[in-house]
Amino acid sequence: MQEFIFHNPTKIIFGEGTVSQLGEQAGAYGKKALLVYGMGSVKKNGVYDQAVASLTEAGVEIVEFGGVKSNPLMSYARKGVELAKAEHVDMVVAVGGGSVIDTSKSICAGAVTDTDILEFFVFTSNVETALPLLTVVTIPAAGSEMNGGMVLTRDDTLDKLGTCNYPPLYPKVSILDPTVTYTIPQSYTAFSAADSMSHLLEGYFTQTDEWSPIQDRFVEGLCKSIMEAADKAVADPKDFQGRATLMWGATMAFNDLAWMGIGPFGFPNHMLEHPLSAIYDIAHGAGLSIMMLAWMKYASEKGNARIAKFARNVLDIQADDDLAAAGEGIEKFRAWLEKVGSYTCFKDAGIPESGIDRITERTVFLANLWGAEDYNAENISEIYRMCGPFAEE
Amino acid sequence: MQEFIFHNPTKIIFGEGTVSQLGEQAGAYGKKALLVYGMGSVKKNGVYDQAVASLTEAGVEIVEFGGVKSNPLMSYARKGVELAKAEHVDMVVAVGGGSVIDTSKSICAGAVTDTDILEFFVFTSNVETALPLLTVVTIPAAGSEMNGGMVLTRDDTLDKLGTCNYPPLYPKVSILDPTVTYTIPQSYTAFSAADSMSHLLEGYFTQTDEWSPIQDRFVEGLCKSIMEAADKAVADPKDFQGRATLMWGATMAFNDLAWMGIGPFGFPNHMLEHPLSAIYDIAHGAGLSIMMLAWMKYASEKGNARIAKFARNVLDIQADDDLAAAGEGIEKFRAWLEKVGSYTCFKDAGIPESGIDRITERTVFLANLWGAEDYNAENISEIYRMCGPFAEE
Repeated sequence: MQEFIFHNPTKIIFGEGTVSQLGEQAGAYGKKALLVYGMGSVKKNGVYDQAVASLTEAGVEIVEFGGVKSNPLMSYARKGVELAKAEHVDMVVAVGGGSVIDTSKSICAGAVTDTDILEFFVFTSNVETALPLLTVVTIPAAGSEMNGGMVLTRDDTLDKLGTCNYPPLYPKVSILDPTVTYTIPQSYTAFSAADSMSHLLEGYFTQTDEWSPIQDRFVEGLCKSIMEAADKAVADPKDFQGRATLMWGATMAFNDLAWMGIGPFGFPNHMLEHPLSAIYDIAHGAGLSIMMLAWMKYASEKGNARIAKFARNVLDIQADDDLAAAGEGIEKFRAWLEKVGSYTCFKDAGIPESGIDRITERTVFLANLWGAEDYNAENISEIYRMCGPFAEE
Repeated sequence: MQEFIFHNPTKIIFGEGTVSQLGEQAGAYGKKALLVYGMGSVKKNGVYDQAVASLTEAGVEIVEFGGVKSNPLMSYARKGVELAKAEHVDMVVAVGGGSVIDTSKSICAGAVTDTDILEFFVFTSNVETALPLLTVVTIPAAGSEMNGGMVLTRDDTLDKLGTCNYPPLYPKVSILDPTVTYTIPQSYTAFSAADSMSHLLEGYFTQTDEWSPIQDRFVEGLCKSIMEAADKAVADPKDFQGRATLMWGATMAFNDLAWMGIGPFGFPNHMLEHPLSAIYDIAHGAGLSIMMLAWMKYASEKGNARIAKFARNVLDIQADDDLAAAGEGIEKFRAWLEKVGSYTCFKDAGIPESGIDRITERTVFLANLWGAEDYNAENISEIYRMCGPFAEE
């Protein structure tokens, strides 16, 4: 273990029917809220109505800002910033998944300053203060409901940029009702499970600490639980226990605990994925599902022994040799991802081999921005070429 | 999984040399601190000097309140309350283990009210507000550095009373430097490991949820890690990795995460232990070490299948039959506790069989106070009689 600071003040309210507590919680932060949501699924599944009813009952005035799309754009978030400023809202309430929550975070940060929000993503400015944020999670995947990071896509370059954890952006309250996830289709259930696992595995695979058994087992236990829960939710979309475990698993996967004390680590799978979802507009979790398989193969062949550890401790692979164990583990993981309905190759995502050059160029940009010194155009495109079969040109 | 609320705002600063950050952190909460510590070990190992130097350098005035003994008494905490009131301190800084931190929590609660602190322990008053608390942990066991509970012993009856989590009592900042634990003797290292494990296992053994894989694996992984780390620290008291893992393990064991969503559960081992340490003034962890072995036997014979689960998943027992697996697990756990130097029977703790009547009487009182309806004088004394061999009369 190495040194760390952990400070996660988000209050989690978990359980069936908890959306009704939104208004009471929001009331502690003011009288006027910007209500941010997506393309309308929350209106179909009733969560929007529950949230509005609870806020209204508590006397919290609502300013609407719907229409956030997945892989959200910075330009749209800027509109939210302008609205929040014009309406002098006291807080932002996000009702949705990671796209809605991250758009909301950028609004919270942008509404209290004249700094353009892009600066928080390219590290030319810090988020020193922000409006309070409350969230109602509808897709358990991003984990943004219990951390201080955010991801938005820059319109002009289609670079999907992620930030570090900004302390003012930890949500004050996040409400997690597993029953609101019953309507998530199988594909997105699978993508979300892959997304959660990738958050756990980035640190697990790339950590530099000599001995971190608490963190290793934390990650391994959550991965096993998320896989079991995804199986249950795929078998029966209204399986409360499966949905509940996926939901709390997604939050635990990205609330900072997984990498406390593991030393410096990277986010190579996210770096490799961001251009996929930004350019091809696929689900982030779907892209991660593909990239993890390719990156794990690449890394194990480069001598990364943690892939074999994952194979043994999460996937019950028995092989003694690390490379053999990693290989068997990757194939078992691929089979599981296929079974639950996630993507495992560029063909699934509609990405042709000819797209690799453009993706590689944007990933090189991210590698430079994030200081991922081990990555360059050559090995990045090598990893992408391991993502076949490819879509037809 | 079942519904829960999780809200743990304590900031953890972890690593070698972090005590030097105390003053800067304390400075955010005021200019005058009550510095609470124990019987002098912090003066011998240099932590006191580090804490005082850091506070002084940051311009924080210190009011001293040392002399807190282990199994701390409410009467002594009341003296701290009076001193905090008389000196109008802005905060309390605890430098020590659970006894010091819990005494400090009661001072934080008592200093801002005319209510006697006993009321917070017998649930006739709530802690609605409190002075801010910062801690520097010197014994990783109690976990009090990252929760809102406290335990003190009532002088007149020697009842060792514990509270629920009071939100105002979560420390603002807790500083964990594993190197300050290098001087903890083997016995207390072992007692502390048992203490941490008991915090994890109370919920694990008595939970009522039908399916909670995240929580089960969280507990199992931490127990395995704590056992491995204790082995390392016993083999070499200055093994940084062993000490670091014991320290973070103790905090993670009792920061509420272990039982989020597991449904109603009990604290039978703590209930059975409290009278032991209160009356015989043994280390709480030593008493828990004894009680866990006896209670696990009692519970498994009553049909509690979770003991077998622990035996299989933490202690690698293979037996198919639950009672057999539990029995083998208990004996393996006993052997490990003996090996690292903890207590496993009343003889180790100097408790004669004739003491059981008095202990039972006080435990019945606790069972009533805590609503532990499954326990009565008959089965409580039955469990104590399983704690032999006994000390000579």
